[in-house]
Amino acid sequence: MAFFNNRELLQELGFGTKNYKTRVRFLNTDGSVNVKRSGLGLLRNLDVFHWLISTTAFKLNLVILIWYIFINSFFACTYFLIGPEHFGGLDVPVGSTFRELSALFFFSAQTITTLGYGHVYPIGELASTAASIESLLGLLSFAVATGVLYGRFSRPKAHILYSDSLLIAPYKEGKAIMFRLVNKKQSELIESEVKVNVTFTNAASNKREFYSLRLEIEKINFLPFSWTIVHPLNDESPIAGYSFKDYESLDFEFLVLFKAINDTVSQNVYSRFSYKPEQIIDQAKFLPMDQKVDKKGRVVIDVNDVNKFQKLN
Amino acid sequence: MAFFNNRELLQELGFGTKNYKTRVRFLNTDGSVNVKRSGLGLLRNLDVFHWLISTTAFKLNLVILIWYIFINSFFACTYFLIGPEHFGGLDVPVGSTFRELSALFFFSAQTITTLGYGHVYPIGELASTAASIESLLGLLSFAVATGVLYGRFSRPKAHILYSDSLLIAPYKEGKAIMFRLVNKKQSELIESEVKVNVTFTNAASNKREFYSLRLEIEKINFLPFSWTIVHPLNDESPIAGYSFKDYESLDFEFLVLFKAINDTVSQNVYSRFSYKPEQIIDQAKFLPMDQKVDKKGRVVIDVNDVNKFQKLN
Amino acid sequence: MAFFNNRELLQELGFGTKNYKTRVRFLNTDGSVNVKRSGLGLLRNLDVFHWLISTTAFKLNLVILIWYIFINSFFACTYFLIGPEHFGGLDVPVGSTFRELSALFFFSAQTITTLGYGHVYPIGELASTAASIESLLGLLSFAVATGVLYGRFSRPKAHILYSDSLLIAPYKEGKAIMFRLVNKKQSELIESEVKVNVTFTNAASNKREFYSLRLEIEKINFLPFSWTIVHPLNDESPIAGYSFKDYESLDFEFLVLFKAINDTVSQNVYSRFSYKPEQIIDQAKFLPMDQKVDKKGRVVIDVNDVNKFQKLN
Amino acid sequence: MAFFNNRELLQELGFGTKNYKTRVRFLNTDGSVNVKRSGLGLLRNLDVFHWLISTTAFKLNLVILIWYIFINSFFACTYFLIGPEHFGGLDVPVGSTFRELSALFFFSAQTITTLGYGHVYPIGELASTAASIESLLGLLSFAVATGVLYGRFSRPKAHILYSDSLLIAPYKEGKAIMFRLVNKKQSELIESEVKVNVTFTNAASNKREFYSLRLEIEKINFLPFSWTIVHPLNDESPIAGYSFKDYESLDFEFLVLFKAINDTVSQNVYSRFSYKPEQIIDQAKFLPMDQKVDKKGRVVIDVNDVNKFQKLN
Repeated sequence: MAFFNNRELLQELGFGTKNYKTRVRFLNTDGSVNVKRSGLGLLRNLDVFHWLISTTAFKLNLVILIWYIFINSFFACTYFLIGPEHFGGLDVPVGSTFRELSALFFFSAQTITTLGYGHVYPIGELASTAASIESLLGLLSFAVATGVLYGRFSRPKAHILYSDSLLIAPYKEGKAIMFRLVNKKQSELIESEVKVNVTFTNAASNKREFYSLRLEIEKINFLPFSWTIVHPLNDESPIAGYSFKDYESLDFEFLVLFKAINDTVSQNVYSRFSYKPEQIIDQAKFLPMDQKVDKKGRVVIDVNDVNKFQKLN
Repeated sequence: MAFFNNRELLQELGFGTKNYKTRVRFLNTDGSVNVKRSGLGLLRNLDVFHWLISTTAFKLNLVILIWYIFINSFFACTYFLIGPEHFGGLDVPVGSTFRELSALFFFSAQTITTLGYGHVYPIGELASTAASIESLLGLLSFAVATGVLYGRFSRPKAHILYSDSLLIAPYKEGKAIMFRLVNKKQSELIESEVKVNVTFTNAASNKREFYSLRLEIEKINFLPFSWTIVHPLNDESPIAGYSFKDYESLDFEFLVLFKAINDTVSQNVYSRFSYKPEQIIDQAKFLPMDQKVDKKGRVVIDVNDVNKFQKLN
Repeated sequence: MAFFNNRELLQELGFGTKNYKTRVRFLNTDGSVNVKRSGLGLLRNLDVFHWLISTTAFKLNLVILIWYIFINSFFACTYFLIGPEHFGGLDVPVGSTFRELSALFFFSAQTITTLGYGHVYPIGELASTAASIESLLGLLSFAVATGVLYGRFSRPKAHILYSDSLLIAPYKEGKAIMFRLVNKKQSELIESEVKVNVTFTNAASNKREFYSLRLEIEKINFLPFSWTIVHPLNDESPIAGYSFKDYESLDFEFLVLFKAINDTVSQNVYSRFSYKPEQIIDQAKFLPMDQKVDKKGRVVIDVNDVNKFQKLN
Repeated sequence: MAFFNNRELLQELGFGTKNYKTRVRFLNTDGSVNVKRSGLGLLRNLDVFHWLISTTAFKLNLVILIWYIFINSFFACTYFLIGPEHFGGLDVPVGSTFRELSALFFFSAQTITTLGYGHVYPIGELASTAASIESLLGLLSFAVATGVLYGRFSRPKAHILYSDSLLIAPYKEGKAIMFRLVNKKQSELIESEVKVNVTFTNAASNKREFYSLRLEIEKINFLPFSWTIVHPLNDESPIAGYSFKDYESLDFEFLVLFKAINDTVSQNVYSRFSYKPEQIIDQAKFLPMDQKVDKKGRVVIDVNDVNKFQKLN
């Protein structure tokens, strides 16, 4: 990616320049793009696997539990319709519907998990067929669960903590846009790359414009400590002519695209972040992160230090 | 990929130039290449895993069900040949072949799923050996099923909706070939790239020729809305000299190759599409896709709008 | 990979130039490198997962069966040492060692597969502990089996059929080295690339030399039919000065490196092949592969046609 | 990666130049970066999957065993609180708390593994509910175990054995830094690449400086034998002016970054290594590795030969 002329309009970002009548946020704080796609009907729009592997652990467990209760209730009813007399060892008073349903519910649970204690067992073709289908369904469901859990665990993610604020800091003879990031996790990220784009409303045309920003360093081999990303506000910068006040009035947004290789799984990982004017601080500089050495001789850092900065007068 | 001279014949597509006596479609509408390879015998040509992870969910479920019925029938017969007297708890009238086979079928189902209620159980070496083998087979089968289901779910796909039509639309002072595409799913695609090639019959040599088409934008960072791919029909275009009518008579086909990174699984995804003359509309232009803002502040689009265009007179 | 000067010695292949006192084959016919590494002791040299996912299906099944018999025999003996009286429902004559061992073997099989009919069951702490450990071991073993089977199925491979012979064929005004390859499977290969290197003994220095060969086309987008790889034997070729007879006396080997993307799983796949002098045919040319059109309108090819060539007088 | 001016300070390594008051080791001998990140609380800092797939087999087995004993103890207590009278077939003397807990512990083990012999079984809603939850938990746990085991096996690693020492050896008319590496495993590594960086304390500024070193060969296609990496100490080298004694006093560290493609799984693999002054030997040269030919015609090497060198006087 060469930047032969970075004052040129950036068309490659994909957000388009029109249709933005109000203030917008292009990237959410979690890095997701602020767009919802509809039009295919609920089922076809739903990307089940995507949801299952990217939702929270709490919601996933809830879904599994609800599914487990639902499927056992369904089969308990099915078995009840077939007739409780087709199940040996039920050992409940005849005619006690609730007790029968309850016993069949637990028989179902023992069948779908392929537990099969056997103190309750199906008698006759119909009950046996239903139980056969349930145990097959159970195995396939848990095959899906295995896939989902593995997909969640092995899904390569970049656990990047960005500084809450983007600073306009002194740099050489002038100023520079600066922000910091740090790897939150113990697994190493290698060959990390950052691209920063800026978008704002062109006051004259009233259209959105996008520019890429030239960075002091775009790629580093390791990310052991924090990495301060620096865009010098010199003559070559496409935003050199805009003051801190313009950031608010022209609805600036700094879009950060991060890419690295997770060393544990040897896969590419991506992260995104964006800074809106309320997150930008003029006349400030980052403070170095503390580094202690522990008993094992390792350099210990506190990732929260990524936010340590100092206001300049 | 540089296009130093894009009027030069493209040899790198791999389709060859000979042997096309009749009209052909190189890419099917689902993006697959229109070729069948034979000659290795049925079994060696069959790519079982490829079929299992790319077939429809309905066919896969059918195959699993048929396999389940077949394998249980097979073992029911095996157990019957060993002798129903070698199974405890069968509890069917002696000599009732159908009832015995049926009971052994369900015993087999309880064995292969490792359910093992135990109200029926094998007696003696032969029956026990058969049951041992069946339960091992069952575990291995469900290991395969787990792999297949995970392979299906985790298989990286680009869910791209292409506009049904390719338009010849006004562009700057001249005309351009244009089509649109949109991401159907909620998982983001990043670093999307498109290449467009054209093939037609050279009227003089009666051979197939392939050219790559220079695009206005070849790569975008995000694909939140639709992306209109534009090939200007200027002097540099290899198809500048051909009119809309030639497209039909020379059996034109526009081959679209799409590549992106699926952000959820951090993997490359590919999609292909092709336009034949009956899908090409002269003198038309695409209309902008509607953008609403929902309660959560997200921009909502209808992916079907990718097809909205207007005929120009 | 630029070829600024392809008459220069190629050092990047990694085979080294010394220590070749006799005739050697660098690549085996299956593409593996003809080297065995030792020195770490049997266990540490053994790459179990590599072996399990790359061995033949027959050997894998044999290993599973042997493991199944071994582990059940081991636990049968363990249970026997604990004492057959600690197992309920054994139902064999007391003192009949073989019958007891046999029954415990099948109890073990029912335990390790988590089948658990329950007509035999452990009594007391010792027997129960052993059975608990066995069922845990069983689950972990089948977790490994699931991983191995998925690893085998999902392992990206390039199923390339190379022509048995490399031809020295007429090409433009001169000659060229040519061979053909075809995709054996129905899953598409995209962005296929080939590199060809040659190695032979320098008669003067008696050392091995390696050169890369410039190809007519190095990369193609699709591989629907066969691909004929062509190295023109013109003045720029590093082997232009050698005749067909020299190939034998200088122990030539043509090393073919193939790389593509498997479209089904969106992963890179690799294949290698090599041609020794006995596989090289002078004065011959490949014949076109037959193309039929089946009822579905697909072009059908026979992959064995990759070997069809004609001797020229 | 071009090296237009490799005497220029290298900023891209990511280690920073400040804050190094004492002697440090940047890379550990196992290639991990010598940094510990804290500040998110124990749970959020913990990367469980990363730990599970990268810890030793012994620790993983221990964790599984401890989990198994813990979870069964937990459910044994739960069942005991529900009341031993709610379990059929317990068959222990009433009031014998230990015997009851022990029997419930094994019932729990039979439930969580979905073994379910059934000689002990739950009676009533409460006991059945607890057992249903345990069997669901069991299946999910073993789904996780399957994922972890597959993740461990399939995790692409470069099993590289580096020479213990880095030599300052004669090279052409001058000297060169040399070290060797070899692939320990039988699975092939292709397209291997090496980058070598050096870091030392600038005596004048007392800051850490990083430079990349130009190598004789940076990339090789195969790695069948050993690969000797050579950095000539000529005028262009950033460390040409430093003597062997300076290495110690300026706290030199040579950082080796290795990258290749594992041919079995077609994935990128990485390895790192570093040499500190105590591992550097002046005036020595590597000896060729022995190559024998076994009965199958394979060239056999001993990977330990990677360390064979000769002191020069």
